[in-house]
Amino acid sequence: MTTSTQVQLVSRPSGWPTPEDFRTVTVDLPDLGPDEVRVQNEFVSVDPYMRGRMNDAKSYAPPYALGETMTGGAVGRVTASTSPALPVGSLVVHGLGWRDVAQGPAAQFRQVAEVPGAPNSVHLGILGMTGLTAYVGLTAIAGLREGETVFVSGAAGAVGTAVGQIARLLGAGRVLGSAGSAEKVALLTDRYGYDAAVNYKDAPIREQLPAIAPDGVDVFFDNVGGDHLEAAVDVFNPHGRAALCGAISGYNDVERPAGPDNLWHLVSKKLTLRGFIVGDHAELSAEFGEKVAGWFTAGQVVFDETVVDGIENSVEAFLTMMRGGNTGKMVVRV
Amino acid sequence: MTTSTQVQLVSRPSGWPTPEDFRTVTVDLPDLGPDEVRVQNEFVSVDPYMRGRMNDAKSYAPPYALGETMTGGAVGRVTASTSPALPVGSLVVHGLGWRDVAQGPAAQFRQVAEVPGAPNSVHLGILGMTGLTAYVGLTAIAGLREGETVFVSGAAGAVGTAVGQIARLLGAGRVLGSAGSAEKVALLTDRYGYDAAVNYKDAPIREQLPAIAPDGVDVFFDNVGGDHLEAAVDVFNPHGRAALCGAISGYNDVERPAGPDNLWHLVSKKLTLRGFIVGDHAELSAEFGEKVAGWFTAGQVVFDETVVDGIENSVEAFLTMMRGGNTGKMVVRV
Repeated sequence: MTTSTQVQLVSRPSGWPTPEDFRTVTVDLPDLGPDEVRVQNEFVSVDPYMRGRMNDAKSYAPPYALGETMTGGAVGRVTASTSPALPVGSLVVHGLGWRDVAQGPAAQFRQVAEVPGAPNSVHLGILGMTGLTAYVGLTAIAGLREGETVFVSGAAGAVGTAVGQIARLLGAGRVLGSAGSAEKVALLTDRYGYDAAVNYKDAPIREQLPAIAPDGVDVFFDNVGGDHLEAAVDVFNPHGRAALCGAISGYNDVERPAGPDNLWHLVSKKLTLRGFIVGDHAELSAEFGEKVAGWFTAGQVVFDETVVDGIENSVEAFLTMMRGGNTGKMVVRV
Repeated sequence: MTTSTQVQLVSRPSGWPTPEDFRTVTVDLPDLGPDEVRVQNEFVSVDPYMRGRMNDAKSYAPPYALGETMTGGAVGRVTASTSPALPVGSLVVHGLGWRDVAQGPAAQFRQVAEVPGAPNSVHLGILGMTGLTAYVGLTAIAGLREGETVFVSGAAGAVGTAVGQIARLLGAGRVLGSAGSAEKVALLTDRYGYDAAVNYKDAPIREQLPAIAPDGVDVFFDNVGGDHLEAAVDVFNPHGRAALCGAISGYNDVERPAGPDNLWHLVSKKLTLRGFIVGDHAELSAEFGEKVAGWFTAGQVVFDETVVDGIENSVEAFLTMMRGGNTGKMVVRV
């Protein structure tokens, strides 16, 4: 009998999740039905949006069900198959999440190509949802134009590291970033093509941003929310646009923090704030795949991962990521 | 010698403007130069955006210069002309503002048609900048689609009364409004085609809005800002859009009020907040003129005015309007 070890949500966290909100179970898997596959996961993704789904609140994705396995992005290899389309050995991505072995109808799995020289986790990162999120935010949401100045919060995170590089490749004039440690700030300028970056823990971002953005900001890609949005609204040029991708700074807040005190600039500077989720923009997948895979293959895009080993450590990996302990994409290696 | 009585800003208000921030002067007008006109104003416009221009702050329009005459929309009749294009008797609109007689290069004046059965002030209101603002906000900014629910703040004001009617004519499914008195609320539903309306002074708008928007709101046209934006964000349906036209509630604030505490919904509900000023959208003037003039001529659009007599009462008219003492467009009759 094949078993699957899985991590499940058992209680809804108030504030920061704790290990007690989860349990690890091992279940027996049934035999495959018709047109099904069994997949040995290689990497499982932990992402900020998952915090929102732990709440029992209406959001863009339904809440995680209590007592069920955490779903989310994963990449693995088919080890058994009754589907002619996905023979044993196929590399696939899927959304079945925090488990070492995934199994189900072949339609829930999508075959991807191995990328020479890159780990298969790249399909969860720069070539996957993470990269697509960066691309969608900069193009469809913010309408980045050549020569414009881009500011990215959470710039050393999975999405942020992609945003800076993709913005540059799309013709941005100046790329600015904010991150939470001196090491990350150095990486932004040394490795990820940022022109300037600040450590938001050194001083309020609202005080630091004007110094690196003397000519203002045209596009703000926000992964953080809160005071970063306020700071961006301060320095926006007329017709500035914000692509609001996430607000990790507030995901674990129990109290609702007050919003930006400068929203009157939305009218006076004719600004646009637009929230989005990548799932609404699947129509850009092909265009993204063509462009970003091309850049990646040509060595024009670098990426980093923070890897935690063991499916039973998924919760720890998630919490570490939420605290900013990762550089680039955080993944769990199964 | 012809004279012109004009109202000038002499000091920048902190908080609410007072009569002492202005002075009324009478100046001698020079003879006309080549291709100039002299215009006897009939109506002068007072508008919320003028409060912003009284501050010495970078905004979409430059600040009013101290010691100079308040500029703004006006309509009047040519009484002297050296311009073949604008002979004596022409009805014109212009931006020279708070004066009884305006004079200058003909290019600063634009001829408009008399509208049978309507006062010439209609060119400052529903057929002028006010109506265009409503049209631009609903179409280019918010992208209103047929069947959608629209919520309008400041709904009994000049722009608001236009928004409700134009939204309906553009196919909105349900039109909701907020105003500041029981009389205004009654007008919204009885006269301006609103399906439901509330008096925001009865209880916090955040508490009242859900009751009249049980199926949520798709488009929010904001003239008020502050708590109205917060309330709209609460009830927005996914992919809701706000056209932010003004924030009259905060124009006289000295302290910066905290912003909405629910901006995380921008991501979770994929919302768009977009500020605009009508001056950026002159390309829609022709389309607007065609559609709205057509509706107006066909009797499908009603309008109201609050009229104050005497150019020397412009400041009082402005302040009354800022306090919500108007229904529909506030104008000064010269």
